[in-house]
Amino acid sequence: MKLSKLLSLVTVASVATVGLGAADIKLSEDEMKKATQVYFDRCAGCHGMLRKGALGPSLEPEKSIAMGTEALKVIINDGTPGGMPGWGKSGELTPEETALMAKYIQIEAPQPPEKSMADMKASHKLLIPVKDRPTAPEAGAENWKDYFAVILRDVGQIAIVDGKTKKVVSVVPSGYATHITRTGASGRYMYVIGRDGKASMIDLWMKEPKNVAEFRPCNDARSIDTSKHKDYMDKYAVIGCYWPPSIVTVDADTLEPMKIVSTASYTYDENVYTREARVAAIIASHEKPEWVINVKETGQVWLYDYSNVMNPKITMVEAERFLHDGGWDLSKRYFMSAANARDVISVIDTQEGKLVKNIPSQGTKPHPGRGANVDHKKLGPVWITGHIGSNDIVAIGTDPVNHPKNAWKVVKKFQLPGEGGGNLFVKTHPNSKYIFADRPVNPDRKLQTQIYVIDKEKLEVVKTIPIPEKYLKSADPKVKARGPVHFEFNADGSEVWTSIWGNKLTASPILVFDSNTLELKSVIDDKRLITPTGKFNVTNTMTDTY
Amino acid sequence: MKLSKLLSLVTVASVATVGLGAADIKLSEDEMKKATQVYFDRCAGCHGMLRKGALGPSLEPEKSIAMGTEALKVIINDGTPGGMPGWGKSGELTPEETALMAKYIQIEAPQPPEKSMADMKASHKLLIPVKDRPTAPEAGAENWKDYFAVILRDVGQIAIVDGKTKKVVSVVPSGYATHITRTGASGRYMYVIGRDGKASMIDLWMKEPKNVAEFRPCNDARSIDTSKHKDYMDKYAVIGCYWPPSIVTVDADTLEPMKIVSTASYTYDENVYTREARVAAIIASHEKPEWVINVKETGQVWLYDYSNVMNPKITMVEAERFLHDGGWDLSKRYFMSAANARDVISVIDTQEGKLVKNIPSQGTKPHPGRGANVDHKKLGPVWITGHIGSNDIVAIGTDPVNHPKNAWKVVKKFQLPGEGGGNLFVKTHPNSKYIFADRPVNPDRKLQTQIYVIDKEKLEVVKTIPIPEKYLKSADPKVKARGPVHFEFNADGSEVWTSIWGNKLTASPILVFDSNTLELKSVIDDKRLITPTGKFNVTNTMTDTY
Repeated sequence: MKLSKLLSLVTVASVATVGLGAADIKLSEDEMKKATQVYFDRCAGCHGMLRKGALGPSLEPEKSIAMGTEALKVIINDGTPGGMPGWGKSGELTPEETALMAKYIQIEAPQPPEKSMADMKASHKLLIPVKDRPTAPEAGAENWKDYFAVILRDVGQIAIVDGKTKKVVSVVPSGYATHITRTGASGRYMYVIGRDGKASMIDLWMKEPKNVAEFRPCNDARSIDTSKHKDYMDKYAVIGCYWPPSIVTVDADTLEPMKIVSTASYTYDENVYTREARVAAIIASHEKPEWVINVKETGQVWLYDYSNVMNPKITMVEAERFLHDGGWDLSKRYFMSAANARDVISVIDTQEGKLVKNIPSQGTKPHPGRGANVDHKKLGPVWITGHIGSNDIVAIGTDPVNHPKNAWKVVKKFQLPGEGGGNLFVKTHPNSKYIFADRPVNPDRKLQTQIYVIDKEKLEVVKTIPIPEKYLKSADPKVKARGPVHFEFNADGSEVWTSIWGNKLTASPILVFDSNTLELKSVIDDKRLITPTGKFNVTNTMTDTY
Repeated sequence: MKLSKLLSLVTVASVATVGLGAADIKLSEDEMKKATQVYFDRCAGCHGMLRKGALGPSLEPEKSIAMGTEALKVIINDGTPGGMPGWGKSGELTPEETALMAKYIQIEAPQPPEKSMADMKASHKLLIPVKDRPTAPEAGAENWKDYFAVILRDVGQIAIVDGKTKKVVSVVPSGYATHITRTGASGRYMYVIGRDGKASMIDLWMKEPKNVAEFRPCNDARSIDTSKHKDYMDKYAVIGCYWPPSIVTVDADTLEPMKIVSTASYTYDENVYTREARVAAIIASHEKPEWVINVKETGQVWLYDYSNVMNPKITMVEAERFLHDGGWDLSKRYFMSAANARDVISVIDTQEGKLVKNIPSQGTKPHPGRGANVDHKKLGPVWITGHIGSNDIVAIGTDPVNHPKNAWKVVKKFQLPGEGGGNLFVKTHPNSKYIFADRPVNPDRKLQTQIYVIDKEKLEVVKTIPIPEKYLKSADPKVKARGPVHFEFNADGSEVWTSIWGNKLTASPILVFDSNTLELKSVIDDKRLITPTGKFNVTNTMTDTY
């Protein structure tokens, strides 16, 4: 629905021109539209809008034509051991859709539209001007610093849940399949970015938090953050676009656009021009007026100095392809960033503005989220990540001054029990003895539906907590809810929250555990909680605690 | 000839697909090739490879189809008062070529090729390794610091002329229609960039200077310079590509490629994505490890910090569209840059890294070259430019500390005598009382063939020196040699050199005047001097004296 505008903008290749080298493949205009939407929803994230590949391999016609329609159908239906989901098998694509996509990827990718400032401005909505917003937290909003923003992924909404009362305070519309939410340094606003490129900001000082502004600078996006340096505190926000590949700076009070910078450039290693140089994770430095920006396809981390906002100063640091997610080490000096398709963690020293090292992650497709930091008694400070493609959890030393022998290498590696990867997130808090890991994309139902509890000192899995079947129910018995996904702590770290990755048919609960006794303390069961995935506590987000 | 590689790379639109909106226009593959070459030679400089316009207006099919073939033929043949040359009238295009081009610009521009590092490396030739080069100036090369590199435009050569003996020391092959030559800070090598993107470097310490390396990183280029900061003296060279729009850093001893950065980004004013964001003038700061780089179409000046060469830091300063040429003020702190299509001089403070002001130039299409600096007794330091489109010469105050009232505005404006513009270069030297101005693209034969002498204190034309007809002869009486073009001083500033812009049919002389008495001192007449245009004295170039 929200994609209709995008699709109307996409230059749909006409029947006459699609047959480049595959003259027998013809799609009608309706089929092209349908396939373009499916591609955007399911394929573009890993293979790229222009199909040049990233986490997934290239799908350019030269290659796909050689594979042929039948082989492609099998792959799309069944998936691959390398991490490609079986879209047919899982029921997410019908056999007709699978067949359509097998044809679609043999023809030239339609050129996605560009967006100018004029296009962007047309999408900007200042819903509540600054002067009409509260000047202090309203009555009833006293707990706002312990609120959680919960992504309701498949319905395009954000639930604001009170971390103390465990009540849903409000449900606010957002972009499609929100990827992340971030607070500013003050925590007052929750910034939300949809995969469809729509940004929104929620005012947490309202008794019933609402969106105060909306803006859609991109057709596809993954990241948002604010200026966190003390001299520019929450003055600007930044949106990282997948398409058009760009960095969009906006006014942090209104989301009003100010500046666009293209990320299209040359790959760091082979120096090949890459139009689709997508902006993956962005993280705001607390020490410098800089955003640390992963440019996925070119393998560069851009240190974007916003102090002169219309004349940015960008240090283009060579790291590794294809950069995706990452987070701070314990000192918040080093940005630990996963180049997932290369099985590498790139360490960026944001103080010196340079790459420290590309570290082999000793697993397949690292996916840290922000990762987990532990000040380990023997090893010193370590940063921890899991992997999508293998069951390895690794700890990397991050203190070159007091623990030089451990710095910038894997100092401990251990496994989640059972075969295969499927881990998406690890998370901890200084007030918990444990790190928590999920495994929602492991194909094994049992492994998928457990919480993996890692002891911070032993650095091994000390317990698995199976999720009782009653929380995994779905209105349709054929479509099962996936296991828990993503963890977040409350402000004081005494509780850890996870959510069931259900489907649109019914609500799914958030489960709240004591972060030290591991006891299930509460179940937040609210009919509005449809497909709750990412959860972001205000205090932990504003302080980058993980 | 040298373009054959380019043309073979250009994706030539096939007959079947060129008819977009102009179904009656069909060109054969041969016609497309021919027209693509003519477009590159004559049109792309002002209208852009993708025809989106720059100094000249947009030529996109939407517009050109509306104008129609007949109207386009007239314009291509006759030119326009706005500065478009009459290519037919001047004999540079035949009637058949004129008709072909009128059709060609009504069909979609063929997509020019990208270049990767691998493509580039294939063009790199280390002709003489560093170890085989002289370690001191060879016998006979004692005058090397007073050598002039003279561009022999239409034969793709550089003549090295001894400023003391006035003899041609050697003639060296270069790229096609060289746009500029620059020395490093030491002066030892002369770096040359052809319009076809071929860079070369000439070793001036050799008895007979030769190319020691060649490299073709672009299909189209206008600028080259070296690292001039004391800590990086002549360590790196930089090539600014028109196509692919990019900044290519190379080893200054070998031209070996190191790093490519794309300049494709958003226009500073309307924030529209612009693939063709061409690199126009580049100038090396003497105070900072920075290159100052004009990005024409986006209207940005990039301050490119090369101190960490593989991880450049770029400050993207908003200035004005469409940036072309420019030079230092007297203090070498401010870069004075012409946004020629907007009739603006953008002043960049390279110390603060910001725009000082966009100054209306009070004339039409300013074209300063590097401009001319005068430390004026009353006005203080001023920087001077002429215009292509009008006969205005203007002086802009450049000293905000001691002459704040005069700073950053036109403090004096006067005219070249006679109607129309046509000035390309003004030039001076601290040891001359005069500024010299040419007018080679004025259509009036008399105005075109004079030297305009401007008194530095009066700031007005005090004398015109007509070039005697005997120096303007051509082997073909129908094709006349144009008047003098471009000035350069010898090292001590006692002489000013200009050259006759002849044609390939015969040699044209360099005329040497006393820079204070204005007496014609010598005529350098050598049969190898075919189409001598730009002249660059080693000492004046290495010190940026103008």
